[in-house]
Amino acid sequence: MPDIPAVNRQMVLVARPAPAVAARLWQLREAATPEPADGQFLVRTRYLSIDPAMRGWIAEAANYATPVPLGAPMRSFAVGEVVASRSLQYAVGEILMGRFGWQDYCLCDGPEVDMRVDPALAPVSTALGVLGINGATGYLGLSLVGQPQVGETVLVSTAAGAVGSVVGQAARIAGCRSVGLTGSDGKVRQCLDLFRFDAAINYRSEPDLAAALARACPDGVDVYFDNVGGAVSDAVMGLINERARIVVCGTIGIPSDPPPLGPRYNRALLVKRARMEGFLVLDHLERLGEVVETLAPWVRDGRMRYREDVVDGLETAPAALLRVLAGENSGKQLVRVRADDA
Amino acid sequence: MPDIPAVNRQMVLVARPAPAVAARLWQLREAATPEPADGQFLVRTRYLSIDPAMRGWIAEAANYATPVPLGAPMRSFAVGEVVASRSLQYAVGEILMGRFGWQDYCLCDGPEVDMRVDPALAPVSTALGVLGINGATGYLGLSLVGQPQVGETVLVSTAAGAVGSVVGQAARIAGCRSVGLTGSDGKVRQCLDLFRFDAAINYRSEPDLAAALARACPDGVDVYFDNVGGAVSDAVMGLINERARIVVCGTIGIPSDPPPLGPRYNRALLVKRARMEGFLVLDHLERLGEVVETLAPWVRDGRMRYREDVVDGLETAPAALLRVLAGENSGKQLVRVRADDA
Repeated sequence: MPDIPAVNRQMVLVARPAPAVAARLWQLREAATPEPADGQFLVRTRYLSIDPAMRGWIAEAANYATPVPLGAPMRSFAVGEVVASRSLQYAVGEILMGRFGWQDYCLCDGPEVDMRVDPALAPVSTALGVLGINGATGYLGLSLVGQPQVGETVLVSTAAGAVGSVVGQAARIAGCRSVGLTGSDGKVRQCLDLFRFDAAINYRSEPDLAAALARACPDGVDVYFDNVGGAVSDAVMGLINERARIVVCGTIGIPSDPPPLGPRYNRALLVKRARMEGFLVLDHLERLGEVVETLAPWVRDGRMRYREDVVDGLETAPAALLRVLAGENSGKQLVRVRADDA
Repeated sequence: MPDIPAVNRQMVLVARPAPAVAARLWQLREAATPEPADGQFLVRTRYLSIDPAMRGWIAEAANYATPVPLGAPMRSFAVGEVVASRSLQYAVGEILMGRFGWQDYCLCDGPEVDMRVDPALAPVSTALGVLGINGATGYLGLSLVGQPQVGETVLVSTAAGAVGSVVGQAARIAGCRSVGLTGSDGKVRQCLDLFRFDAAINYRSEPDLAAALARACPDGVDVYFDNVGGAVSDAVMGLINERARIVVCGTIGIPSDPPPLGPRYNRALLVKRARMEGFLVLDHLERLGEVVETLAPWVRDGRMRYREDVVDGLETAPAALLRVLAGENSGKQLVRVRADDA
C-alpha cells in the first residue's frame, strides 16, 4: 500500500463517564495502519458523525449497543473511501458509510458497512445526516411509530437538529402542521426560515411553556416525536389528543441511570388512549437504501433542507461531542478527519 | 304499571372527592318511579357493577367520561330486566346490561343499553364480570394492545381481580406464561389455585419485589397488563424485554391529579423499543357480543373461571366501592339491589 501512511491515528476511549462526559475520556493514540488480509478491505475515513447516542455507547451499563471497550477506538458512524481491498464485495475507490470509528483507517470485514454512498447524489457528508442515519431516524420513526395523518399536528423536540429537522419537514410533506421545540432564539428562526415549521418555540425562554405550546398547537398534539424527555415533555403531555403517538427517540433531557423522578404519564396515556413507544433506528438499518431513495429527491428539489456543522481534525472529535450534548452545535455535527479532504 | 312500586330509590352523588372517595359523597333519595313515554322503556335493576373506574367518573376534572353531575344517580353498569316498555326494540322480560345507575328503576331511551343478556348462557350477574365489561377489558386489552405470542410471558397486576383474572387465563389459553401481581397471600393462592397462573407474587409482602419478579419471570416480561401503575410497575420496568407491550388499563396505584412523581420510563422504553399504551374498553363496546361469544364457551368448559363478591342492598353500594378502591373485595364486586332477587 504505497500511498497509505504507516501511522493510523485513533481516538481511543480510556475512561467511562463519571457520570459526566468529558474530553479526558478519550486519548489520541498512534497505531500501525493495518493491512487487509484475504476478504478484508481498508477504509480511509473522511467524515465522522457526532451523535447524542454516543453518550449511551460509552456508558458502563448494558444498553441497546454493547459498550465501547476501554482501550478501543471510539465507535462512530463515518463516511470513508476504500483505499485497499482484498474483498470481492468492495473495490478501491468506493465511498461507504458505516461504523468505521474515530480513526484514520478502519480495517473492515464487511459487517461494519451500512451502505454504499453515491457521490453523484449529494455531497458525501449527507450520508451521515439527512441521507443517512439521522434522516432514517426522523423519517422512519415518524412513519413507523408516529404514523402521521393529513391535518394532524406533529410536534418535535430538538427541532433544529439533524433528526428533528427531518421530522418537521417530513411531517409538512405529509400534510401535517409541524411545530418545533428548540433551545435558542436562533434555532427558532432556523426552524421557521430554513426548515419551514408552522410554529417553533424556544423552551428555554418561554415563561409559561404549557401556554406557549397551547398557542402553537391550537388543535392539540397528535404526534410527539421526542428526542429529549424530561420537563419539556412533561409540558407536552397535557396537550396530547386522543390516540396520540409519542415517539421516544432520545432522552438527552434525562440524565443517565438512575433516571430522575418526573410526573407519571400513566393516567394521561390511559385517558387519551395514547401510545408511547421507543424507536431505535439500529433496528431498521436494512431500510437505509429505501430511505435514501425517498429523501434524495426531496433534498434535490429543496423540499428537504439540511444544515451541517463541520469541524476539522480527528483530534476535535471529543470536543465536538461535548458541543452536541450541550446543544451548542448548529446543524448536523460532523468532524472532517483531515482539513484538506473534500 | 300495576306491579311497579311508585318509589324509585336512587343513590345520588352529592359531593366530589376531596380528594379521597368517601361514603358521604352519596345519599339515598326517593323519587317517583318514572313511566315510559312513547319509545321509552323501564329497566328494573338486579345487579350493580362496582368498578375502580368510578373514581374517575366522580372527579371534577374532565376524564374519558363526563363527570357524574352532582344531584344525579351514580353512573353504574348494571344488569336489569325490562318491566315496562313502549319501545319496539326492547320487550318486557328481556334481560339487559347497560348503564342503568345506582337506582331501582332506570327510564331508558335505548343508548343506555350495552347488550342483551342471555340467561341460558350463565348466571345473569356474569354479564357484569367475565361475560361483560371486565371480560372485554381483559380479553380485548390483552389481544389488541398486548398482542401475546405463544411462549411469551404475560404479567398482570391486580391479578386476582375481575379483569386481571381474565387476562391471566386468556394469556394461558394463548400459550403464554402467566404471572400475577396481587396484594395478599390469599389472593396469591386464588391466582395459583383458582385462576391457574404459572406464578403469583404478593407485592405487599415481598421484601425485594424486583428479585421476586425476576424469579417469577425468568425470561423477562413481554406483556405487562397494568391495572395499577406506581411503585409496583416501576419494579416491572427493569424486567421488560425488547419490544415489550405495556397495556395501561388502570392507575389505581396512582393518586388523582396532580400525578405524583415516579422514575421516568423514557429510557427503558427507548432501550427496549417497548410500547406503553392506554386501553379503554369504552372505545370497544361494539365488540362486547363478539367477546361474549369467545369467552362463554371457555366459561362453560371451565377454562375461564371467575369469582364474584356480592353484597346485598342498593344502600351498600358506596361502601362496596370503598372496598374495591382499598382492594378488599375478593372477586368481581357486585351489589344485588334487592336480597330476594335471583
